[in-house]
Amino acid sequence: MNDRLDTALTLPDLAAIRAAHARIRAHVHRTPVFTCAAIDAEAGARIWFKAENLQRIGAFKARGASNAVFSLADGVAARGVVTHSSGNHGAAIAYAASRRGIPAWVVMPEGSAKVKQANVARLGATIRFSGMDAASRAAVCAEVERETGATMIHPFDHAHVIAGQGTAALELLEDVPDLDAVIAPVGGGGLLSGTAIAAKGMKPAVRVFGAEPAHAGDATLAFRSGRVEPLPAGLSPTIADGLRTPLAPRTLAAIRANVDGVESCSEEAIVRAMRITWERAKLVIEPSAAVPLACLLERRFPISGMRVGIIVSGGNVDLERLPWQ
Amino acid sequence: MNDRLDTALTLPDLAAIRAAHARIRAHVHRTPVFTCAAIDAEAGARIWFKAENLQRIGAFKARGASNAVFSLADGVAARGVVTHSSGNHGAAIAYAASRRGIPAWVVMPEGSAKVKQANVARLGATIRFSGMDAASRAAVCAEVERETGATMIHPFDHAHVIAGQGTAALELLEDVPDLDAVIAPVGGGGLLSGTAIAAKGMKPAVRVFGAEPAHAGDATLAFRSGRVEPLPAGLSPTIADGLRTPLAPRTLAAIRANVDGVESCSEEAIVRAMRITWERAKLVIEPSAAVPLACLLERRFPISGMRVGIIVSGGNVDLERLPWQ
Repeated sequence: MNDRLDTALTLPDLAAIRAAHARIRAHVHRTPVFTCAAIDAEAGARIWFKAENLQRIGAFKARGASNAVFSLADGVAARGVVTHSSGNHGAAIAYAASRRGIPAWVVMPEGSAKVKQANVARLGATIRFSGMDAASRAAVCAEVERETGATMIHPFDHAHVIAGQGTAALELLEDVPDLDAVIAPVGGGGLLSGTAIAAKGMKPAVRVFGAEPAHAGDATLAFRSGRVEPLPAGLSPTIADGLRTPLAPRTLAAIRANVDGVESCSEEAIVRAMRITWERAKLVIEPSAAVPLACLLERRFPISGMRVGIIVSGGNVDLERLPWQ
Repeated sequence: MNDRLDTALTLPDLAAIRAAHARIRAHVHRTPVFTCAAIDAEAGARIWFKAENLQRIGAFKARGASNAVFSLADGVAARGVVTHSSGNHGAAIAYAASRRGIPAWVVMPEGSAKVKQANVARLGATIRFSGMDAASRAAVCAEVERETGATMIHPFDHAHVIAGQGTAALELLEDVPDLDAVIAPVGGGGLLSGTAIAAKGMKPAVRVFGAEPAHAGDATLAFRSGRVEPLPAGLSPTIADGLRTPLAPRTLAAIRANVDGVESCSEEAIVRAMRITWERAKLVIEPSAAVPLACLLERRFPISGMRVGIIVSGGNVDLERLPWQ
């Protein structure tokens, strides 16, 4: 199997997502789905929360990383995997590699938070440092590939990663088949792509929406223009740090083909959505995971009174620094 | 049915707890049970968390209050119910009364936190203020009883309340029958009494333990002395504010008859247990709910390596003021 060819320009279909689900089942949790009447009242919809904050490593990223790592042929896998991420994808690759018993290298910007470095190191991966910019990251990854023969697994621009991320929506629609709509946060677009392919494949009538912070509002523009757009200039970085990433051509294609709309929300709404999820649903979620509910609180989607599934993407937060304090 | 007679000195048995479960089923959640490998490693045991923080009103108290309110004969219930509580029991009585469509009065000390007053008021109960001491609270409750004919429902010294609290352990042992031990926090002792009666009734070999803060360590003493003991003098109030209450003769009798041991933990361990539950299990729990895990972290119970169920009593916290900050 030539992984480079397989992942270059392709997208998974529902069958690939079902195959991913079977492949990763032993390595990830089937997460529970929660409802909360108090939040429904504030959001103006009936919401089912797919709690990927309770997933392995605290985020849905365990799904895509596990699918990519366990899709590798034995001889290729033995040389290890490499990725760049200062966040959940790095921990997810470290986790999946440890489950397969292969080495992993995670490229992180110099000066990354110590807690993030510790998470990756605890899972047994080797950290390599790069500069902050994309070119520097890519150069260090390429260097690791050359030195070690490790296979690069991109955080979202990768067919197996997208297929793995789609398994959360697969489970959600198995558990709650009569949803009218599904909403996922969108940064690089791996989760939204997989969510949309799974949901539309299982139930063509379901509506699928992407939600992003206005302060990282490239996908809203790209969905309309049909081109990859840069992050908006001149705005402060969003607190939803997992979503500070523009789309790739591959994820934009999946989103344009399968998603009904992408909308954005204010920073204030993200804090409010995060806080009411902690207070009322008693779930610790990270700012990025609060973005779909934030869009509902600001009434960005035409789904008043509908039955709505939300992929709650993760729960990794720094408890010393909460955004409402 | 004469409720005053029924609740005076009696304790429920397993049959009464099963009857309570059937009575309240439509009004409370069957809460999920969680495991967390990272916490198991720190605690030295395999733990199943019964997540009563996800219960109605955010605490197990909804169970006992619902059982007491729905046990009243129609003519008695119509005159309403009264209780004293500045915390979860007040909200639980307000909730249960609203479900039954009867009036409720909740006696709170003057100067209670506005957020607690708002919780009770939002659920439709009428707040009456008292002084801080037990005599003043009891006097205001008696006044409401005389004025309105409402029935007093004590927070823990009440057979129907104890039976309702026992339904959490009933569900836990139905879901995880092969537990070696069950631990519940102990303040006034209603939850621990119901937990012990249910667990020993269902499975005589299971061990049952109570956990309390050393700064409210009356139950540890009372369990040994056989007498109700006052809260220890000269210590700062525990952050586990739901447990700042001595036992009553009724709950002490239930605990002495059915519990294998009561132990206490430090304030530091409570903060640490609360924090790792938020960080690793992604569950928002209140300090009182962290006390059983805190006792495990300090190795207070002889259960190394065992299969342990913990009743996670509630999740109502002030997100502005976290104890590790």
